Amino acid sequence: MTNPTAAMIVIGDEILSGRTRDANMHHLAGVLTEHAIDLKEVRVISDDPAAITSAVSAMSDAYTYVFTSGGIGPTHDDITADCVAAAFDDHIDVRPDARKLLADYYAETGRELNDARLRMARIPDSATLIENPVSIAPGFVVKNVHVMAGVPSVFKAMVQSVLPTLTGGAPLISETHRCMRGEGDIAAPLGQIADEFPNLSIGSYPFQQDGVYGTNIVVRGTDPSEIKRAIEKIAYAEANLG
Amino acid sequence: MTNPTAAMIVIGDEILSGRTRDANMHHLAGVLTEHAIDLKEVRVISDDPAAITSAVSAMSDAYTYVFTSGGIGPTHDDITADCVAAAFDDHIDVRPDARKLLADYYAETGRELNDARLRMARIPDSATLIENPVSIAPGFVVKNVHVMAGVPSVFKAMVQSVLPTLTGGAPLISETHRCMRGEGDIAAPLGQIADEFPNLSIGSYPFQQDGVYGTNIVVRGTDPSEIKRAIEKIAYAEANLG
Repeated sequence: MTNPTAAMIVIGDEILSGRTRDANMHHLAGVLTEHAIDLKEVRVISDDPAAITSAVSAMSDAYTYVFTSGGIGPTHDDITADCVAAAFDDHIDVRPDARKLLADYYAETGRELNDARLRMARIPDSATLIENPVSIAPGFVVKNVHVMAGVPSVFKAMVQSVLPTLTGGAPLISETHRCMRGEGDIAAPLGQIADEFPNLSIGSYPFQQDGVYGTNIVVRGTDPSEIKRAIEKIAYAEANLG
Repeated sequence: MTNPTAAMIVIGDEILSGRTRDANMHHLAGVLTEHAIDLKEVRVISDDPAAITSAVSAMSDAYTYVFTSGGIGPTHDDITADCVAAAFDDHIDVRPDARKLLADYYAETGRELNDARLRMARIPDSATLIENPVSIAPGFVVKNVHVMAGVPSVFKAMVQSVLPTLTGGAPLISETHRCMRGEGDIAAPLGQIADEFPNLSIGSYPFQQDGVYGTNIVVRGTDPSEIKRAIEKIAYAEANLG
């Protein structure tokens, strides 16, 4: 049985210009792995309508779940909601349910719900809202595309809101063998062991510590006994290196 | 005049699984912006031959420069070089010039140049080598695709090696106005100013400090006097908010 797949679209010129370092990709990657959903691809694209619309269309067709981050605030460069609506030929306008959330919130906090802030209530007709406990302005889901904010605290909160609605696969287990030899020393036996265990994913990650080259070997899969056998073979191979 | 464009392909299951946090994207983004090359898109993809080959082909056609990160080490999951060769129908094997670099280095450091390490000398016939002063195993360039290591220290060194070979555009200048109002307050005048200055890119980045909402407004362009005029208009608009 294979796991459900996922892709992420990060929308933001500020990341492509190097001004901001993205944090949401790493967060989502960890959460999806815990839930046995395989994140297959992330695209970071600019605030460009054609780029957003075509990425949303292509990835919605190719993966079980799509998650977007960024571009749903109140300013002129926040165009994600309109682009997602366009990608699905859906109608979009200020929606009464989203407007009510914002109106109540701004009334409470004594700020003005002006036209710019009302942009955040623009939601496609067919969308389900995603709760935002941090700053209220909601995200939304159209088909399999989950549209969320770029601000990391809000993104995290929205991920929490959508998690219960996602169906995960078989929980992925991962075990690490810390090998005190360089990647190039262990590579040959490791390749053979990877061939022997086609159901496991075996990755090797070199490190350097106190001037010594070592390699963390991470074995991932769904069957604990299979992972244990692979780790034993790797340890045996390391012990018998020339 | 428009700037040259660039795209990056990050190859690595360890990033998509959330095990490792990518650092190379942020580094490359900053360096390219300094050199007036517009990074338009980043794709993070898994260690999958079809995904790598198709991303390399598509992005090589679409952008002036392409940079890849990861998958050129000595282990079974290091398949980037072979995939890039396949994308360009180029022949690939251990190449004498790369083999000599590795042979000299391993002889000096007293380690064995075994079959696994020789994988790092697999270079497409038409490629130019990229110097790696950190750990010697070279990157390479085929057409407009620059193939570099995923280890951040090596990636950075390789970026330094290729920079003199890239042609940049008009230097991009950026100026930031720190606005002490929420993004939703300044959004309307900001949208008008963005329309007035089609040659500038105006981004807004909300922040919160000591309980106060503010917005950093970043104006980017190539004409300093135009940027100055836009910043003045933004400051004037802020001063005259209700």
